[in-house]
Amino acid sequence: MSLERVLAHIDADLNAATERLMELLRIQSISTDPAYAADCDKAADWLVADLRGLGFDAGKRETPGHPMVVGHAPGPGPHVMFYGHYDVQPVDPLDLWDRPPFEPALEETPRGTVLRGRGTSDDKGQLMTFVEACRAWVAVTGALPARISMFFEGEEESGSPSLVPFMRENAEELSADVALICDTGLFQETVPAIVTMLRGLLAEELIITGPDKDLHSGMFGGVAINPIRVLSRIIAGLHDDDGRVTLPGFYDGVPELSDEIRSQWQNLAFDHARFLGDVGLSQPAGETDRTPLEMIWSRPTCEVNGISGGYEGDGFKTVLPSKAMAKISFRLVGDQDPDAIHASFVEYVNAMLPPDCSAEFPLGHGAGASRMSTDHPAFEAARRALSEEWSRPAAYVGCGGSIPIAGHFKDILGLDALLIGFGRDDDQIHSPNEKYDLECFHKGIRSWARILAALS
Amino acid sequence: MSLERVLAHIDADLNAATERLMELLRIQSISTDPAYAADCDKAADWLVADLRGLGFDAGKRETPGHPMVVGHAPGPGPHVMFYGHYDVQPVDPLDLWDRPPFEPALEETPRGTVLRGRGTSDDKGQLMTFVEACRAWVAVTGALPARISMFFEGEEESGSPSLVPFMRENAEELSADVALICDTGLFQETVPAIVTMLRGLLAEELIITGPDKDLHSGMFGGVAINPIRVLSRIIAGLHDDDGRVTLPGFYDGVPELSDEIRSQWQNLAFDHARFLGDVGLSQPAGETDRTPLEMIWSRPTCEVNGISGGYEGDGFKTVLPSKAMAKISFRLVGDQDPDAIHASFVEYVNAMLPPDCSAEFPLGHGAGASRMSTDHPAFEAARRALSEEWSRPAAYVGCGGSIPIAGHFKDILGLDALLIGFGRDDDQIHSPNEKYDLECFHKGIRSWARILAALS
Repeated sequence: MSLERVLAHIDADLNAATERLMELLRIQSISTDPAYAADCDKAADWLVADLRGLGFDAGKRETPGHPMVVGHAPGPGPHVMFYGHYDVQPVDPLDLWDRPPFEPALEETPRGTVLRGRGTSDDKGQLMTFVEACRAWVAVTGALPARISMFFEGEEESGSPSLVPFMRENAEELSADVALICDTGLFQETVPAIVTMLRGLLAEELIITGPDKDLHSGMFGGVAINPIRVLSRIIAGLHDDDGRVTLPGFYDGVPELSDEIRSQWQNLAFDHARFLGDVGLSQPAGETDRTPLEMIWSRPTCEVNGISGGYEGDGFKTVLPSKAMAKISFRLVGDQDPDAIHASFVEYVNAMLPPDCSAEFPLGHGAGASRMSTDHPAFEAARRALSEEWSRPAAYVGCGGSIPIAGHFKDILGLDALLIGFGRDDDQIHSPNEKYDLECFHKGIRSWARILAALS
Repeated sequence: MSLERVLAHIDADLNAATERLMELLRIQSISTDPAYAADCDKAADWLVADLRGLGFDAGKRETPGHPMVVGHAPGPGPHVMFYGHYDVQPVDPLDLWDRPPFEPALEETPRGTVLRGRGTSDDKGQLMTFVEACRAWVAVTGALPARISMFFEGEEESGSPSLVPFMRENAEELSADVALICDTGLFQETVPAIVTMLRGLLAEELIITGPDKDLHSGMFGGVAINPIRVLSRIIAGLHDDDGRVTLPGFYDGVPELSDEIRSQWQNLAFDHARFLGDVGLSQPAGETDRTPLEMIWSRPTCEVNGISGGYEGDGFKTVLPSKAMAKISFRLVGDQDPDAIHASFVEYVNAMLPPDCSAEFPLGHGAGASRMSTDHPAFEAARRALSEEWSRPAAYVGCGGSIPIAGHFKDILGLDALLIGFGRDDDQIHSPNEKYDLECFHKGIRSWARILAALS
């Protein structure tokens, strides 16, 4: 049977697959920082070349931002569209990395061999699990087991400004029978999962201006309004003492969990203590009347992702700054409307502004939450294939992160998306020392080989 | 009479004096940033050479930080000790400067000719007014009109860590009859002033740590405590709705103004609207039951001078940071005790910390307020000399800034200090585009020439 030979080939080819991934990881494709635009381009070129080597009709497609990579290859059975992203998060604070983030290496750790470096888990390593599965099928059988299209984005970590226009303009070319997305994780350590609920995201930047220039706090302190103090009051007022977000209308459209899902999640026996303990915490923060798993998968949040103002360097400077800035994100669930929440946020901030202060909102864009309909037969086929590879029944789960592409596949292309990934909670994505377990890379490739067989 | 010839020499030599000052201004002596240590050293060397040229027995004196400059020259009459500082504030944000901060130049403005650049007003330009007055006396009469010692510091803008130990170790050498300090301003535009009340300063850095690494806000948001939110709540709670500082015991030792000083200050006709209007504001913030002048000169404050945490760059990054930091300063008056207020601040912060969060306080040092006793005959002599130069009666005033050296002269050396300076409110010290009016530099030199004559 072909599948067994394909899996054996994957096992034998793991070292070479790891080397290929490390080539891609060395490209510094940080999409949010314009200084790395040429590197993003280089990553796209690398993928185009790799896909062409597998027989794909692949090309780089320009956008106003970083390019897309699109490739098509013929095959029997259903038409599968695979999505991943080749861009990565910034690497600061650089001094917290134990090795240069773009010089990836295998490391032995108490929990096994890991591949360390920026993008190993999010998302280059995950993206390559699928590409390597295709490579194995081609190597062993000379062909792909299904008709496959690839669609790689280079702006996922910077809000995907070009994604929706590109999908709309190329809707016909991007049509398929089902979409596969590899940008999520396992459940706990070894339970494979298909994500069927994804939170949405509204990203805000808030800039408060008080005096029209930086002042000396000895000369003006007390009398001149301080924008850092104003910003702090605004942030402090966003949550009440029970951890609920105070914006009027914020919870409109937030559904309660069905009894069925609630009991399924209870059966998952999520280890709160381990989840928090791994990051140096012992007690859940947030809404006092919700469980941690409920909060992460099904409740909306408001978090401050960055704050800045005045003198931040070594030593002390008695400045009373003109401006202060915060980056604030809202995770959305159910039918929460990002535009309505943006409007409520703007109204809240403006009501908190003292005289002589002004507020700017340079971002304020977002996407609502997604919920997959698991009726499509691909869900059950993929779940069986995953369960076989991992020897554990695969779970339908929620996900705290926001992967708007899943919603776009549904809204723009009418495609159901299977979100299947092999990351682990301790991968430190978006953080220093990001890693991807070699076991996840290996079994991830094997999982896709099985899923392709099951779908065809 | 010698004084008239000295003043005429000062007028004739103004261009050359400006050129000398510009040489000193080109040295990037930013004391708070270790990267500029060699520049601080260079500024000290420049001053030593200049003093030696005037006949001073001058030298650079090493400290654990940046060097002191001390020089002595003989003369008749009382022994005068002059203090100034050669270090300057950092220059960021650099993009708000209209010219390179260390390439000073004369500029014509609607309010007259100004010398633009970092340190022009704070404090190199002010320090040089006294040096140039000495130079003129030496040039015209061949000698100084008094016995003069110079004492220049290079750490004033970074908390003066070496100052008190140095003064204690060298108390005998630094003894004199009276101290002169040039690091303050005129009152309003053209009224000369001697500062007799100075606020103290307590500088705090507060670092809040939550999770032990940066996290993904999609995966951990809501459930993991966010140190930026904790810090914002702490800052928001430092003031009540009436602008008063909430720390227990903060107002212990804060005196009410005497009726005499209150009525004197009312007679000064301080132009609140202009003071605020110059920096883009229209309404005083701060304590609702105090006038702006009262707040700046006689009331304590708490201001946030800097804040930082998470992702602050372009674009967006959904990080939930491990740490957040704020720099907070308290201006102190009367008998407020910096150590007691530091302890109250620490207690307040610790009481606000949620579970799993920790706080660090790497600074927490400070100095109390100073109040001069104006009985010393030098005060009246200097007041008359200033009134003659500016054709306006000189005022005894308060000062919002903190110049701990005045208190140290009293406490360590038993010296009364005359704080006389020629800065203007719009000098933008500690801000981009710092300037010093050429008129202030010129009349400042003339003022010191007169004061030296009056003291001798």
